[in-house]
Amino acid sequence: MIRRIDRIATELPPPSEPDVAGAAAVQELMGGRFGEMSTFMNYMFQSFNFRNRQGARPFYDLVANIAAEEFGHVELVAAAINTMLTGATPVNDGKAPKAALAQVKGIGNPHHFLAGGQGALPQNSLGQPWDGSYVFSSGDLVEDLTHNFFLETGARNNKLKVYEMVEHPAARALTGYLLVRGGVHQVAYARALERLTGADLTKLFPTPRIPTEKIPECKPHIKRGDHLRLYRFSPSDYLELGAVFNGPHPETGEELVVVDEAPEGVPAHDLPSQPAVFAPDYAPEEIAEIAQKLRTQAGLSKEPTGEVASGSEPTKPRRTSTKKAGSKKK
Amino acid sequence: MIRRIDRIATELPPPSEPDVAGAAAVQELMGGRFGEMSTFMNYMFQSFNFRNRQGARPFYDLVANIAAEEFGHVELVAAAINTMLTGATPVNDGKAPKAALAQVKGIGNPHHFLAGGQGALPQNSLGQPWDGSYVFSSGDLVEDLTHNFFLETGARNNKLKVYEMVEHPAARALTGYLLVRGGVHQVAYARALERLTGADLTKLFPTPRIPTEKIPECKPHIKRGDHLRLYRFSPSDYLELGAVFNGPHPETGEELVVVDEAPEGVPAHDLPSQPAVFAPDYAPEEIAEIAQKLRTQAGLSKEPTGEVASGSEPTKPRRTSTKKAGSKKK
Amino acid sequence: MIRRIDRIATELPPPSEPDVAGAAAVQELMGGRFGEMSTFMNYMFQSFNFRNRQGARPFYDLVANIAAEEFGHVELVAAAINTMLTGATPVNDGKAPKAALAQVKGIGNPHHFLAGGQGALPQNSLGQPWDGSYVFSSGDLVEDLTHNFFLETGARNNKLKVYEMVEHPAARALTGYLLVRGGVHQVAYARALERLTGADLTKLFPTPRIPTEKIPECKPHIKRGDHLRLYRFSPSDYLELGAVFNGPHPETGEELVVVDEAPEGVPAHDLPSQPAVFAPDYAPEEIAEIAQKLRTQAGLSKEPTGEVASGSEPTKPRRTSTKKAGSKKK
Amino acid sequence: MIRRIDRIATELPPPSEPDVAGAAAVQELMGGRFGEMSTFMNYMFQSFNFRNRQGARPFYDLVANIAAEEFGHVELVAAAINTMLTGATPVNDGKAPKAALAQVKGIGNPHHFLAGGQGALPQNSLGQPWDGSYVFSSGDLVEDLTHNFFLETGARNNKLKVYEMVEHPAARALTGYLLVRGGVHQVAYARALERLTGADLTKLFPTPRIPTEKIPECKPHIKRGDHLRLYRFSPSDYLELGAVFNGPHPETGEELVVVDEAPEGVPAHDLPSQPAVFAPDYAPEEIAEIAQKLRTQAGLSKEPTGEVASGSEPTKPRRTSTKKAGSKKK
Amino acid sequence: MIRRIDRIATELPPPSEPDVAGAAAVQELMGGRFGEMSTFMNYMFQSFNFRNRQGARPFYDLVANIAAEEFGHVELVAAAINTMLTGATPVNDGKAPKAALAQVKGIGNPHHFLAGGQGALPQNSLGQPWDGSYVFSSGDLVEDLTHNFFLETGARNNKLKVYEMVEHPAARALTGYLLVRGGVHQVAYARALERLTGADLTKLFPTPRIPTEKIPECKPHIKRGDHLRLYRFSPSDYLELGAVFNGPHPETGEELVVVDEAPEGVPAHDLPSQPAVFAPDYAPEEIAEIAQKLRTQAGLSKEPTGEVASGSEPTKPRRTSTKKAGSKKK
Amino acid sequence: MIRRIDRIATELPPPSEPDVAGAAAVQELMGGRFGEMSTFMNYMFQSFNFRNRQGARPFYDLVANIAAEEFGHVELVAAAINTMLTGATPVNDGKAPKAALAQVKGIGNPHHFLAGGQGALPQNSLGQPWDGSYVFSSGDLVEDLTHNFFLETGARNNKLKVYEMVEHPAARALTGYLLVRGGVHQVAYARALERLTGADLTKLFPTPRIPTEKIPECKPHIKRGDHLRLYRFSPSDYLELGAVFNGPHPETGEELVVVDEAPEGVPAHDLPSQPAVFAPDYAPEEIAEIAQKLRTQAGLSKEPTGEVASGSEPTKPRRTSTKKAGSKKK
Repeated sequence: MIRRIDRIATELPPPSEPDVAGAAAVQELMGGRFGEMSTFMNYMFQSFNFRNRQGARPFYDLVANIAAEEFGHVELVAAAINTMLTGATPVNDGKAPKAALAQVKGIGNPHHFLAGGQGALPQNSLGQPWDGSYVFSSGDLVEDLTHNFFLETGARNNKLKVYEMVEHPAARALTGYLLVRGGVHQVAYARALERLTGADLTKLFPTPRIPTEKIPECKPHIKRGDHLRLYRFSPSDYLELGAVFNGPHPETGEELVVVDEAPEGVPAHDLPSQPAVFAPDYAPEEIAEIAQKLRTQAGLSKEPTGEVASGSEPTKPRRTSTKKAGSKKK
Repeated sequence: MIRRIDRIATELPPPSEPDVAGAAAVQELMGGRFGEMSTFMNYMFQSFNFRNRQGARPFYDLVANIAAEEFGHVELVAAAINTMLTGATPVNDGKAPKAALAQVKGIGNPHHFLAGGQGALPQNSLGQPWDGSYVFSSGDLVEDLTHNFFLETGARNNKLKVYEMVEHPAARALTGYLLVRGGVHQVAYARALERLTGADLTKLFPTPRIPTEKIPECKPHIKRGDHLRLYRFSPSDYLELGAVFNGPHPETGEELVVVDEAPEGVPAHDLPSQPAVFAPDYAPEEIAEIAQKLRTQAGLSKEPTGEVASGSEPTKPRRTSTKKAGSKKK
Repeated sequence: MIRRIDRIATELPPPSEPDVAGAAAVQELMGGRFGEMSTFMNYMFQSFNFRNRQGARPFYDLVANIAAEEFGHVELVAAAINTMLTGATPVNDGKAPKAALAQVKGIGNPHHFLAGGQGALPQNSLGQPWDGSYVFSSGDLVEDLTHNFFLETGARNNKLKVYEMVEHPAARALTGYLLVRGGVHQVAYARALERLTGADLTKLFPTPRIPTEKIPECKPHIKRGDHLRLYRFSPSDYLELGAVFNGPHPETGEELVVVDEAPEGVPAHDLPSQPAVFAPDYAPEEIAEIAQKLRTQAGLSKEPTGEVASGSEPTKPRRTSTKKAGSKKK
Repeated sequence: MIRRIDRIATELPPPSEPDVAGAAAVQELMGGRFGEMSTFMNYMFQSFNFRNRQGARPFYDLVANIAAEEFGHVELVAAAINTMLTGATPVNDGKAPKAALAQVKGIGNPHHFLAGGQGALPQNSLGQPWDGSYVFSSGDLVEDLTHNFFLETGARNNKLKVYEMVEHPAARALTGYLLVRGGVHQVAYARALERLTGADLTKLFPTPRIPTEKIPECKPHIKRGDHLRLYRFSPSDYLELGAVFNGPHPETGEELVVVDEAPEGVPAHDLPSQPAVFAPDYAPEEIAEIAQKLRTQAGLSKEPTGEVASGSEPTKPRRTSTKKAGSKKK
Repeated sequence: MIRRIDRIATELPPPSEPDVAGAAAVQELMGGRFGEMSTFMNYMFQSFNFRNRQGARPFYDLVANIAAEEFGHVELVAAAINTMLTGATPVNDGKAPKAALAQVKGIGNPHHFLAGGQGALPQNSLGQPWDGSYVFSSGDLVEDLTHNFFLETGARNNKLKVYEMVEHPAARALTGYLLVRGGVHQVAYARALERLTGADLTKLFPTPRIPTEKIPECKPHIKRGDHLRLYRFSPSDYLELGAVFNGPHPETGEELVVVDEAPEGVPAHDLPSQPAVFAPDYAPEEIAEIAQKLRTQAGLSKEPTGEVASGSEPTKPRRTSTKKAGSKKK
Repeated sequence: MIRRIDRIATELPPPSEPDVAGAAAVQELMGGRFGEMSTFMNYMFQSFNFRNRQGARPFYDLVANIAAEEFGHVELVAAAINTMLTGATPVNDGKAPKAALAQVKGIGNPHHFLAGGQGALPQNSLGQPWDGSYVFSSGDLVEDLTHNFFLETGARNNKLKVYEMVEHPAARALTGYLLVRGGVHQVAYARALERLTGADLTKLFPTPRIPTEKIPECKPHIKRGDHLRLYRFSPSDYLELGAVFNGPHPETGEELVVVDEAPEGVPAHDLPSQPAVFAPDYAPEEIAEIAQKLRTQAGLSKEPTGEVASGSEPTKPRRTSTKKAGSKKK
């Protein structure tokens, strides 16, 4: 089971100039064969299916715990894509239902607008849905770890290339962070294989053979030591990470560290409504009214209780007078 | 982000008589269009993509929080499938590599054995992979809620039918539990739609029109009141559930309740090794030896720290003498 | 546009002994690459996309008109599958929600029960969904006709093999009919190619090289002359079929005939409720009550107006007392 | 069974400036999850699989009859796409086989040119094929209707967004019409659910919450009353529509009306040849010659008998002298 | 480019008792993610896409050359499947077109009979088509080699499990051979990685951790030394294999060997006609007559020139008298 | 089995101006339904599955032999795509890891950069993976030949259209060659059908009805007589091609010819490294150093032994100083 925290793993910049084609490319890190859905789902299923956990506890803990971090990576990719799509359609009601999407015709992933509400989708950079066949869960521990090392290698490749392709600040903040954290997982699985078989994979690092530290957006995370740390994403469990994750980092020689709690994260930006795609509504202010009334009726605070990044400025589209678009709570 | 707890949502029986064909059928609740991966991923993406969260906070909190519970349902389906597959292959080394899988040729889902290690896969009852196209995240709140109500309706249908098809105790414990909890989510989304639009969906319950209380395996959960409760799956967030989830239960008229913490869950059974499929190894006892040594070296307790259901008896296959199958930790 | 007639193309026997595995095989004729959905959709799209129709009117009329007949073939395959699945689950309420589907676990297509209501699906014999990539619509008339001839050849192969595999009377009535009618279409496209290019394809018949007249279930249709006739499926249009469809039948030498109206068809059997899969409901008699009330309120006849095959005996499951399963029309 | 009429549901403008990227977007309304193929196929399969039709006749009639209208919508979307693609390649033979498609490289859906003949395909806006998994046919009437209401809701969303994205007159004529007619189906399914369960869905309208009457291209259809009418698409059957489809329109309060015959429709434009993609041929005038000869031989009128929209001016590409491209009817 | 030799890689037994369910399982080794189509296609694409081949020639030669051997493995899997399916349908014409396939209804992969002619298909054990997304060709040499090592590991797993599941002599001869040869490729890629990066992967062998030499059907191949040899599958090229493939075998310590020519192979069995599925015809003897006449007319020998395994006894089904099934060579 | 030759079928120009969008379009000839993977795989599987080969030897030889040529076509399409992608990213290290892919964002197939190393993929022009369902192998010889004739017809259509769409010299050299060779295969299958059934398909040529000789890039190949020749792609086998492939060419009346050996082919260009996508590495010169050392250690020549097209100038990116990117051979 999980507990959910309403925070994201690292800070992303607020929406700025939208980048529709860039958002389509970043989808590779979401729903591509080597995207974050794949890492999350692979480790999740491998942990679900782990037999004789007690006998192999340090390895079970490792896989199960990394799965938990990957959830936050899926969430972060979504946040970056959503940031990049924000502002790609007009917010003034003078446009809708006129030609509010004409300017994005033929650009990027059409499903970002036609199917979604300028939001992330479980698709890759070609708009193809993520697929359960990307999950490898053979049950054979050596094989599963070999797969995971390969998966993280492919993931690192894709992150580097998306970095090179997309310069939008949200994409760069995303890839800078993911490269560092994904790198830790790549090390973790190599180390687990080493511990289990005696093979020495140290010299396979880095793959691709460009060091993470050359990426400017990675540097702050490296400086903070995040390239060495495996966090424990549980208040109570997965206590044996340190039996596997230890020794020198294969590239820098620094000692690997298990951190006995999850990172705090940061509040996400509250991305503004995009009424041209009805997200969250054609007339978002009506939902806000209803929400406030419901909160009052339930005896909750008048103001929303959730925390969002300061500087989030929800778009407040002018009230559009529509004959019958409202709704009343009974 | 999430925190992970090494427990499952409800008690499942320990492995008994395996049911290979039944396990194939239960996969529909995992990777089918209306399976738990779908509910989890739909609400996850909808929460990721939710715009103007502050303005619509009670609805955001509802969707984001139910997503968190769904993770546990995916995990529970996996546990049930794994339980049903346990014992379907011989554990004595007299068979492997002889014809240890001959008895399951042509029965159930061949990937349970050929691709997996007698473990759950992100597939449906036809062995088709779960697919990102099952995710609906339009960004339009009324639509997303309409979808979610429909999704839970289809899910309830599938659970009822899997109940009828598979009599294995693990499948029955699973479906009994999921019917009750899925029923709560069906109510939650209907209520959210009602709150948002004023429509009254009460009379759509139950759909399918067979009351949950008629299912024997649902009764203990109903008796405990679990058909009325929405748990908050967060130590800190999603505080506004009660603004939406309130009023009478559409079938029983009892008052709906928000529970301000997540259920405790129970430890899972530690399912035994199945060496015929190399899960977790052809010679599992070697992994156990390595694990113990690693634990000692890391200064951890000699015994595994994880908690598993009492009565879990890991298979201990006799040591098979293989010329070169071992491995040494460096 | 179309007009719909509530009749099927030929008589099928009423439900008898169910054949669940046979129904799964017959799905190949529904959603397989060479199934009736493929013939219907191919000719439909080719007719939609036909350019310079006036200049090539006889060919346009031919393709557009055969498309119309194919709709009826899709419908007929569905009727056969539904007939074969009828009775595969118990109707007495003593079983549901107990183990009403246990007897079909591991047999046939699980989606017939878990996803559908013992009904046909747009899938092939492997349970794989029909797919738009099966449609060939190049716009090049010679190519499209070459494709269509090949498609009918593959379809004839599949019908023959399903005939050989499935002995259920509904499957045999189906394949007997489809072989004769599909054979006419195979001839029609060969003749169209001949007319357009001058090539003589006569000697390609029959392919597969087993004559239709050897199939006992084809004989009545051949005796009636249905192997020679192209029906015009329109009250007003597609008047130029005869410009292409004429000359001797390639196998028998008899003259081909255009019939200037569509066949009458026959009423379908009203297949009984299967309450174990909630089709059309867990308590079907409640729907009947509602329907009757609605009919009365609307000033319609008390008895249903639709025509069904005589001898259709709708299952009347005993009223099951459910605490809250009813519904009232407002 | 069906009868086919060689007319389309509403008038579309003749080809003007082509819009290749727009045509790619409009494909969402053809082969997307919520496109017209989905509505057509869903209702078609639900009607095929309907059990105990006599007992639930008004509902059977409703679903079966709407399926028939949807065929015409699929056809209309194809006509719009074909119109938008017309003229995107040069017609003078000075280009072919030179670089006649160079100007559309990298624009829109490449299959419109490489696979098709500048014609519609069973694909969505990403070029992904329509898929039988989009069909929901559970057999459970309440569920199927719930699905259908949701499907029409998603379809309305997609039509609105395609409207916003594509300004080509054919796309606007298409979406204006479909929004009105799809709106009727959305009402019809909501009303059917209301009649069957007693739930009141009136306040869910409109979803998305922008009223149809705000769309300029919808206004003529609304003015004509088409937002209130359910047509009976059969010369003889489906007589009980009025038992379900009645009462006030949920948005306007006007009385819903069953029209006892199908709309007349209008003749389609005869879209001109596009010889660069060999549609219907590299040298279309040769087909015309053959067709005329065949017509004469068959004793038909010298002129084509089919009716097309006045003002259709089939392209007459200059006769290209090809050494061996002709063909002779035997 | 390739040259083709009409021989298969190793001897398979002639057809004996058919094993329809076993043949369906063996398909995993054909079209599964880790099947021989995957190894063939991966190395083929990697060699096609190899940049700066001269600079990395030994690695290019290795990948390109292994690709060539894999073709023969795909062919061998097909031969095994075809052998296992032979005899599953009656050959006497008394059955066809009666119920010649009734005995395989519901058994194995229905496409082996309905789509194919009792022949192998590019599908996995679930009947799902092989898919280009299984190809990994990143262009990054270290990554591609990492992938290939992992791919061979997964392939070894699948071969072992198919071995355990299917006891048919053709399946056992197949898997015995493939395990040995695939093992060589696993070593080759590990060694290439070692040479390129300095990492030592020796201790990862064997994975799965059951030694190949424990498999009885592997022993003759090991005895012959085939577990140590990399053959050069070219009369002229790929001369630098020995720069990479050398040193001790990771399991046995014996020296690896490059053999400077391809293995001779053996003639395949000429599998007999299966007229129930029209393979190669409903009346195969007619084809034989035509072939002989053609051979004579072309001045070729009267007897077929091709070599087949001695003991191949082509089925000679009695001439069935069909009214019009023959054909004449012009 | 095959032997591989390190040469391609015809000369392609060296890299010039890259054409990213063009390369995406050319993928249709690789992984499209009618691409070269389809022709290769179809004939490969049909030859694998051919029953009673001795009885139908000339036909078996024909199919098996054409399969062998098709391998070279797949290779050639890859070479053309790779040529067109070369140079699309900067080679100077001043860019990587900066924004080396920014200029190709939103252009062409993103997988050419994000997944691949500026290399060909088993995908079509929409980026969709090639799929085993494109393989038709019914076992029925007449049907398989009918399919093959249709397949070649569709392939010819696609080649013509790619010709028209993509003017890059590599694409034109490719399509010019493939049109001629594919035309031979189209004739071969038509002739085989004629020989087998007596039907005369001569007048179906050319389809599409534009003569190959009108394409300038085809002329040199026609002049050389390559439109008349079927090469035997085996040193020893497939000796009976001439029993089928003979008589006049359907378009020109010239006599068809069997050439008793395979064409020599030409060396391919050694396409330069593209370090921005790590192909074959971030620092390709390091691989070259390692390769040279390995060659020396193995006693091979110092210079690479492989032959590449003269004028191939491998990019030599300046050595980038990376802290830890090297690797040592043990």
